[in-house]
Amino acid sequence: MRVINYPRRLVQMLITGMLALFSFGSALAQQKNVVVRMAKLQIDSAQLEAYKAVLKWHAETAVHVEPGVLTLHAVSDKDNPTHITVFEIYASEEAYKSHLETAHFKKYKSETRNMVKSLELVQVDPIALETKAK
Amino acid sequence: MRVINYPRRLVQMLITGMLALFSFGSALAQQKNVVVRMAKLQIDSAQLEAYKAVLKWHAETAVHVEPGVLTLHAVSDKDNPTHITVFEIYASEEAYKSHLETAHFKKYKSETRNMVKSLELVQVDPIALETKAK
Repeated sequence: MRVINYPRRLVQMLITGMLALFSFGSALAQQKNVVVRMAKLQIDSAQLEAYKAVLKWHAETAVHVEPGVLTLHAVSDKDNPTHITVFEIYASEEAYKSHLETAHFKKYKSETRNMVKSLELVQVDPIALETKAK
Repeated sequence: MRVINYPRRLVQMLITGMLALFSFGSALAQQKNVVVRMAKLQIDSAQLEAYKAVLKWHAETAVHVEPGVLTLHAVSDKDNPTHITVFEIYASEEAYKSHLETAHFKKYKSETRNMVKSLELVQVDPIALETKAK
């Protein structure tokens, strides 16, 4: 067997390059399949604090326990606190459908049914989904 | 000097507990200072692709090079692709102000000036900002 002594730096560069290509590929694949949605809600002002508590619990639970729920960001307008926007990223259509069947989502839905005055779901296409690694 | 031999498990539990309290504290502190904003834009349809390319470049650059730019998510409505929403999270008010002074933000602003038909900035309060660790 012939043993070739490749320069160590060259081998390191090749390995780094391959790893970079691999991560780039996975990032692209991940971004291609994701389902992104915005929910715009208006909440009964008398029940706003209760609603926010359930929403927060639901977001924490879903992102913590479901592998396909990547992001749930919920915010209220400063000038109009009963106006809530939820920005949602799922790994795939299947992950989104499976989320709708979870106990925590069903609990969120039933507990907030009488708090939500209106709900608009906006289907969106991602342009950039940049987040710093934690 | 008296040396006390604490049970090893107890010491481990204490250290774990202190670390947990510390992480919890930092997470809270981090969430307390963050600045969250939504930008709602309407883009000239003839320049939409060019606008999206600049927006994507700007988001990638800012999250990559600025320690205080935590998240930039940009999406377009499926039913109305010229309607863009950008969901922005900065580590602090200072991080946000410093972002406005960067070369990449200024380049984004100048290159897109004639592409943006309207821009509404919505100040929001976070309720939940849950993202899976990468």
